[in-house]
Amino acid sequence: MKPINVGLLGIGTVGGGTFAVLKRNEEEITRRAGRPIRISVVADKNLALANQVTGGACRVTDDAFAVVSDPEVDIVVELIGGYGVARQLVMKAIENGKHVVTANKALLATHGNEIFAAASAKGVIVAFEAAVAGGIPIIKALREGLTANRIQWIAGIINGTTNFILSEMRDKGLPFEAVLKEAQALGYAEADPTFDIEGIDAAHKLTIMSAIAFGIPMQFDKAYVEGITRLQAQDIRYAEQLGYRIKLLGITRRTEAGVELRVHPTLIPTKRLIANVEGAMNAVLVQGDAVGATLYYGKGAGAEPTASAVIADLVDVTRLHTADPGNRVPHLAFQPDRISDLPVLPMSEVQTSYYLRLRVADKPGVLADITRILADEAISIDAMLQKEPDEGEAQTDIIILTHQCKEAAADAAIARIEALETVSGKATRLRLESLS
Amino acid sequence: MKPINVGLLGIGTVGGGTFAVLKRNEEEITRRAGRPIRISVVADKNLALANQVTGGACRVTDDAFAVVSDPEVDIVVELIGGYGVARQLVMKAIENGKHVVTANKALLATHGNEIFAAASAKGVIVAFEAAVAGGIPIIKALREGLTANRIQWIAGIINGTTNFILSEMRDKGLPFEAVLKEAQALGYAEADPTFDIEGIDAAHKLTIMSAIAFGIPMQFDKAYVEGITRLQAQDIRYAEQLGYRIKLLGITRRTEAGVELRVHPTLIPTKRLIANVEGAMNAVLVQGDAVGATLYYGKGAGAEPTASAVIADLVDVTRLHTADPGNRVPHLAFQPDRISDLPVLPMSEVQTSYYLRLRVADKPGVLADITRILADEAISIDAMLQKEPDEGEAQTDIIILTHQCKEAAADAAIARIEALETVSGKATRLRLESLS
Repeated sequence: MKPINVGLLGIGTVGGGTFAVLKRNEEEITRRAGRPIRISVVADKNLALANQVTGGACRVTDDAFAVVSDPEVDIVVELIGGYGVARQLVMKAIENGKHVVTANKALLATHGNEIFAAASAKGVIVAFEAAVAGGIPIIKALREGLTANRIQWIAGIINGTTNFILSEMRDKGLPFEAVLKEAQALGYAEADPTFDIEGIDAAHKLTIMSAIAFGIPMQFDKAYVEGITRLQAQDIRYAEQLGYRIKLLGITRRTEAGVELRVHPTLIPTKRLIANVEGAMNAVLVQGDAVGATLYYGKGAGAEPTASAVIADLVDVTRLHTADPGNRVPHLAFQPDRISDLPVLPMSEVQTSYYLRLRVADKPGVLADITRILADEAISIDAMLQKEPDEGEAQTDIIILTHQCKEAAADAAIARIEALETVSGKATRLRLESLS
Repeated sequence: MKPINVGLLGIGTVGGGTFAVLKRNEEEITRRAGRPIRISVVADKNLALANQVTGGACRVTDDAFAVVSDPEVDIVVELIGGYGVARQLVMKAIENGKHVVTANKALLATHGNEIFAAASAKGVIVAFEAAVAGGIPIIKALREGLTANRIQWIAGIINGTTNFILSEMRDKGLPFEAVLKEAQALGYAEADPTFDIEGIDAAHKLTIMSAIAFGIPMQFDKAYVEGITRLQAQDIRYAEQLGYRIKLLGITRRTEAGVELRVHPTLIPTKRLIANVEGAMNAVLVQGDAVGATLYYGKGAGAEPTASAVIADLVDVTRLHTADPGNRVPHLAFQPDRISDLPVLPMSEVQTSYYLRLRVADKPGVLADITRILADEAISIDAMLQKEPDEGEAQTDIIILTHQCKEAAADAAIARIEALETVSGKATRLRLESLS
C-alpha cells in the first residue's frame, strides 16, 4: 500500500529518535498501521547533522518552510520547539492542509487555542501525545480512555529533571545547587535549566492536561508556578520523618468555583505509589468519578521514549486522515462548541494543606502564640514536630502540618506568625496533598 | 444531535454501574462524544431487578435475543459473561450488523478469533477495554499508545481477588485458607472462587493482552496457568527476607523461538513499583523497545471502574461507527492479514529464575550435593538462605534463588534434588522475575 509521507522538522534528539525507531520497527509499525509511514524529507538548520542521521534515506533541506508547503508531505512532525519559528511553521502547515504531530508543550500551552481553532477550521489533525510525559500515553488516556468520567483532579510528576534532582537530594542529603551540577554533568539537566527547575516546563504540560481533562481552553498565563530552587535539604528530611516525600507536582483540580492550576513542590504521603517514582521517571495520577484513581508511569523524556509518542500519533493520523473530522477525537477532548468557561482560580482561592517550618526562640509560650494565630484563621493542625535545640542554641525548629485551608488564610496566618518577636526570619511554607 | 442507541445485556454489577454512570455523567459524556449515548433497552432474566435499576428510563425485556435483533439498537453491550449464551448473542449481534462492546474476557480469550473474524467480515466493531484490568485503559495503551514499539514483554497484576489475598497473607502472616474466607466475607472473592484463585481469570486477560501486543491469535488453551492455592505463608516471609514480594503475575514475552504465556505466583524485587501494588488494585507493566517500561495502575474490577471502560468504548464506537473500517484500529491491534504465527512456547522451554525451598537434614555435605546437581544442569545460584534448625529439629530449610534457566533444566534438577536421601519431601518451587 502507498506510504504516508512525513516531513520531519528538526533532527535533534527526538527527531533522531523518531527517525531511528521508524526505521528499526518499520515492519511492526506497518503491520499495525496498514501502510508504511515514510519520512520523505527532513529539515534542519544543521544540514551536516541531517545528512549524517538520515544517511541518504530521504531528502534533506535547511528550509523548513519548504517542507510545510511540500505537496508530497501528508504529515508535518514539528520537533523544533519554542514559540517562534515553530509556531509559524505549524500555522503554515495547517493552512496548507497538512496534519501536524508535535512534541512542543510550550507552543501548545501558550498558542494552543489559536492552533487548534485553525486546525479544526481546516479539517486537519494536530496531535500532541509527545508534548506531555514523553512516552507515557497520557494524552490518549485522558482524551479517550477516561471519557466516561468527570475527571476530578490530576497530579503529575511531569518533569524528569526536577524529579531526578529531588531524588538525589533525598538519597544523598545534598543541597539543591550540588545536585543540579551533578544533573548537568549527567545530561539530566540543561546548561540553562531555568524552564525545568523553575517549574515552567511542568506548567506547560499541566496546562495541556488541564484543558483536555476539564474541557477548558489552554490558560498557561493563569497557572501558579513555583520551582524547586529554594527547596532545602532539611525540609526533605523533616518531611521524611513525618511520613512524606517532596515531589514537584503539577496539580489541576476542578472545583465548583473554578479550576486549580498549579505547579509547586508538594509533600505527599510516602505510602502512595506516586511518592515512590524516583529518578528521571514521570508519573501522572488521575482521579475520575467513576474509575477512581488511575496512574500512568514511564520515561518522560529522551530520544526513543518521546519518539514512541510521536510515532503513535503518526499511526493515529495515518488511520484517521481520510475519515470525516466527526470521526476523530476532538483536539481538546471535548467538542469545540462545548468548551467550558470555568475560570482558573487565583492561588489565594486554592484549598490545600501546608507544611510550615518556623525558627523560634526556645522558650515557653511560643507554641501557644503560633497555634492561637492558626486557630484565629480557622486553620487546624494535623501534626507537629518540635526539635530539641542544638547544644548551645537558643532557637529551634518547629514543623507544623495543617489541615486544608484557603491559601489566603495561610498567607494571613504566616504573615502574623512571622511578625511574632519569638519567630525569627521567614517561615518556610510548602504545600501538602494527601492524593486520596 | 440524534442519540446513539444502546442495548444493554445484563443489569448486574457492571450493567448497573454502566447505567448509573451514563446517567450521572450524561452531559460530560455528550460534551466529549458529540451526541448523546442512550440506553434504549435493557435485557435481563431478572425483570424485577431491571425495572428497579432503570426506573422506567428505558424499555426492559427478559429476551436478550430480541435486543440483538432490535432495529433501534446501534450498539450491543454484552455484560452477561461466560461462553454460552453470551457467545450466541455476540455472534447474532454481529450478524445483524450491530457494534458490540463487551467486558467478557472468558469469551474473547476462548472464542475471540472467531468473533473478530465475523466482526471484520461484517464491518462492525467489537470493543473490549473492560475485559482487561477494569477501568485501566490498558487495551487502548497497547493497541494505540505503544504502536511505535516492538513490545518485548508484559507483566501484570490482573486479578484483584488474588492480589488482595496475597497482600493480606503478607500483612497478617495468615495462611491462604483463612484469608480466602476473609476475602469472601468482604465480597472480594466469590462463593466459588476457582476462576480467580486458580489463575484462570488472569490467564484469560493475559491471553487478550498477548494477542494485541504481539499480533498473534488468541491462544488461551496454550497458556500455562498456576494459581495461588498452594502458596504457603512461610514462602512469602522468606521472599521478603531476600528482598522480594510474591504476586500472581500474568507474564507474556516475545522470544525468537516463540511467545511465553504464563500465569503463576512470582517473586519480584520489592523495590519495583509494581511490587507495591497492594489490595485489590491492578497494574500492568509493559516493556517496549522504544519507550522502555511503562506502567498502568488502577481498579481492576467493580461496578463503576468497569463501567468507565465500557463507556469509553461506547464513546469510541459512537465516533467511529460511521467511519470506513480502514479508519478504525484493527481488533487485534495489527491488520488482520498481518497476524503472526509465532507459536506459544511450552512451559519447558520458558526461561525464568527460581526460588527453591528445600527441607534438608542438618548435616555436612547436603549443600554440596544440591549445588553440584544445579551445576550439572548449568543452573547458577544467585542467592542462598540457610535457616538455623529449630531447637531439637534435625532438619532445616534451605532457600536458593537461581539465575535464569530453562524450565526443563529446573525440572530435571529438582527431580534429582528430591531424590537425595538428605532432602525430605517435595521441593517448593516458585518462579522469579527481575522485571528489568
